[in-house]
Amino acid sequence: MTDHEPLESLFRAYDSAAADLQSEYLEFLRIPSVSAETKYRDDVNRGALWVESFLKDAGMSVEIWRGSGHPTVFAEWLGAGTTQPTLLIYNHYDVQPVDPIALWTSPPFEPTVQGNEVFARGAQDNKGQCFYVMAAVRWWLKSKGRLPINIKLCIEGEEETGSESLAKLLAEKSERLKADYLYIVDLGIHEVARPALTLGVRGIVTMTVELRGSNSDLHSGMVGGMMYNPNRALSEMLSKLYTAEGRVAVPGFYDRVNEIPDTELQAINFEFDEPQFEKMFGAKPIGGEKAFTPMQRAWVRPTVEINGMWGGYTGDGFKTVIPAQSNAKISCRLVADQDPQEIASLVKQYLEELTPAGMTLNVKIHAGSGRAVRTRSIARPIQVTAEIISEIFGKPCEFILSGGSIPIIAELARAAHAEVVMLGYGLPDDNIHAPNEHFGLDRIRNGFVTIAASIDRLANR
Amino acid sequence: MTDHEPLESLFRAYDSAAADLQSEYLEFLRIPSVSAETKYRDDVNRGALWVESFLKDAGMSVEIWRGSGHPTVFAEWLGAGTTQPTLLIYNHYDVQPVDPIALWTSPPFEPTVQGNEVFARGAQDNKGQCFYVMAAVRWWLKSKGRLPINIKLCIEGEEETGSESLAKLLAEKSERLKADYLYIVDLGIHEVARPALTLGVRGIVTMTVELRGSNSDLHSGMVGGMMYNPNRALSEMLSKLYTAEGRVAVPGFYDRVNEIPDTELQAINFEFDEPQFEKMFGAKPIGGEKAFTPMQRAWVRPTVEINGMWGGYTGDGFKTVIPAQSNAKISCRLVADQDPQEIASLVKQYLEELTPAGMTLNVKIHAGSGRAVRTRSIARPIQVTAEIISEIFGKPCEFILSGGSIPIIAELARAAHAEVVMLGYGLPDDNIHAPNEHFGLDRIRNGFVTIAASIDRLANR
Repeated sequence: MTDHEPLESLFRAYDSAAADLQSEYLEFLRIPSVSAETKYRDDVNRGALWVESFLKDAGMSVEIWRGSGHPTVFAEWLGAGTTQPTLLIYNHYDVQPVDPIALWTSPPFEPTVQGNEVFARGAQDNKGQCFYVMAAVRWWLKSKGRLPINIKLCIEGEEETGSESLAKLLAEKSERLKADYLYIVDLGIHEVARPALTLGVRGIVTMTVELRGSNSDLHSGMVGGMMYNPNRALSEMLSKLYTAEGRVAVPGFYDRVNEIPDTELQAINFEFDEPQFEKMFGAKPIGGEKAFTPMQRAWVRPTVEINGMWGGYTGDGFKTVIPAQSNAKISCRLVADQDPQEIASLVKQYLEELTPAGMTLNVKIHAGSGRAVRTRSIARPIQVTAEIISEIFGKPCEFILSGGSIPIIAELARAAHAEVVMLGYGLPDDNIHAPNEHFGLDRIRNGFVTIAASIDRLANR
Repeated sequence: MTDHEPLESLFRAYDSAAADLQSEYLEFLRIPSVSAETKYRDDVNRGALWVESFLKDAGMSVEIWRGSGHPTVFAEWLGAGTTQPTLLIYNHYDVQPVDPIALWTSPPFEPTVQGNEVFARGAQDNKGQCFYVMAAVRWWLKSKGRLPINIKLCIEGEEETGSESLAKLLAEKSERLKADYLYIVDLGIHEVARPALTLGVRGIVTMTVELRGSNSDLHSGMVGGMMYNPNRALSEMLSKLYTAEGRVAVPGFYDRVNEIPDTELQAINFEFDEPQFEKMFGAKPIGGEKAFTPMQRAWVRPTVEINGMWGGYTGDGFKTVIPAQSNAKISCRLVADQDPQEIASLVKQYLEELTPAGMTLNVKIHAGSGRAVRTRSIARPIQVTAEIISEIFGKPCEFILSGGSIPIIAELARAAHAEVVMLGYGLPDDNIHAPNEHFGLDRIRNGFVTIAASIDRLANR
């Protein structure tokens, strides 16, 4: 049994290689691996090959899994033997589209370093966080010739478009993915100097709703007052998704929303700065269930949101159309044991019941749904990681939740039979999914040390 | 005192010149006088010049009134003297845009004659109806050297975009427009062999509504459940525009909707073919006020319609946005003494009252509003015209209403101090405002005789 590698020596290891690491990181960022747009198809593949080459060079055994869409890079090093645990780490090398391109102050695929900050698409989400994971694994292999535990890396290329290929591969690859712990390194903290781990993400299911009345658009002079306008009918239906208290009115919606044990709630920092929220967004947090606090509503309560609605004439000026059809995009954020397909069915059934006689409702449930994931603050890998993070920052690691969703986590954890740890050094103002995405070199450094130390301290001694 | 010109001789006059008339009509149709699109600006002007030249050649005194937008052609012949009445006839030479152009089976500005039907943009609305008016006036002047009554023609170039220029000129030109009777030759009949005059059109006022929540689009993972989603709020507000009985719920909306005298209601043919309606439109007439029949709802009752609504993500796939803003286009069809500005204010005020605290509502009321127009079946010019139409068709002229709106009529009638007659030979399936607009040469012929005979029989003998 050996001692842990001191954090200080891990920081030194990073600092002595910082220039080379930065240049590799920027090289990774230069590959426009936008998974959503067909024109970048070859670039996404180049992204996979870059990751493959990095990990092969590190000394890992690497495979490229090609499914229906973009490839997943799977790498492993199992030399620690069966007496040591196996850690699976999830990242993705694909990035969001760059539009609106005009709002970027530097080209999204020509990374620009300004002091500590690196501006590029993917700088944080998720190439930056993927990079420090790969660099930490390589450091162990290159400097020590081995890893204290067994490591598997699953780095996919479709996170930004719903992880469909990887989801389809999970059953077949379940044995290969098997691990004791699963680190999802695609999360964040609230402030740069406040260490935190995420104990939960909400699940999600999304759908597109079409409500059809007449067989074509009509003129409101001719049939206005006679025809039931689908825009009116859809407004009426959507308004009935909520009660006056802001609860979701869909029957059965809350059936699988279990109470959260007080012990777990007490571990979580639900602190909320309402003036700051109002200053940032220009509005008060007055949506959702009145019976809960804003942070409870964002983190531990499920929601129904109308993310889009449209019908009839939406251009300049005016056209007196009675549209044939009115439409909405609806998403549900899920918690606890809510099942995406079951919830989608409940919403669909409720909307069907609300559909006026003579109109036709069509509800399309999108791929890319996923259950909520909730970990326990007392789980061993979470305690280990929290301890490392507390040491790095010199203050206690907080436990937080995320209102967002990474739909693949629940299924990946089930396939791997692993205990989940959700972490990362993203910040709310990194502009992921927006122009001028950026990430801090200090956070790459902290990430490197966090992963390198976790690999060390998860080992049985 | 002379006898009326027999209808038969008017038909003969048309038939003997039919080939020349047709070729002039097609020439008129070849001018792409689309008032809504800037690129046709010179063509709209060419349309005005073509009308000017036609009427000058006919022997009228012609002026072009240039206001803020496209010109109005004003022509007069006042040789009948003060003992005879003055008839003002309103038409327009501008036409609707042609999009979607791909759905036209022949080019919209290369008129194509197929048997009786002429296919071209404007074939009916309103160049066809304008053409038979001008041809009838010219026939009198060319063949008799004079007209039995005084005639003024007001042919505008902005009907399809809201008549803003003409509306602004009305006060200044009131004396020039003064007339005893005002014929609006921009209406229709229900079936080609069923003679009818229109006793009323509804008024209209339109507005664009913007409901703003946060200062930018947000992510439903981050603030879903916290932020009041403007799509939800707008659905709730729009759904409250109506009662469960389909009445408009805006306070004061019906205040100036007076009862219609039974004598007038009895004159009107409210016949409604529900199976035919359902067959045409693929839907039952189940919108609007349950207390009224479908035709009453379309013709003598006011409405509020949501002609457009949009907010958030409306493209393919899904984006989990909480939009900063949600929007709607709302129109009100007006009857009786409802004032467009007053009704718009009532709707605006009601929506303001429904706006959730912390959100901002912006209501823009569009130009191009107008009051309802209702004429009496017993008015002299209506009786005269109905008698002619009955003779042409060999069956009694019906009285109908229109649910549509020609906003300029009410103001033009007030400026001219004239009694209004609304007529025309449009049919519901002429595809006005749509691809493959067409008009029948038989209807040009009937229109010519209707106008030529009206000019004759309105004279004092």
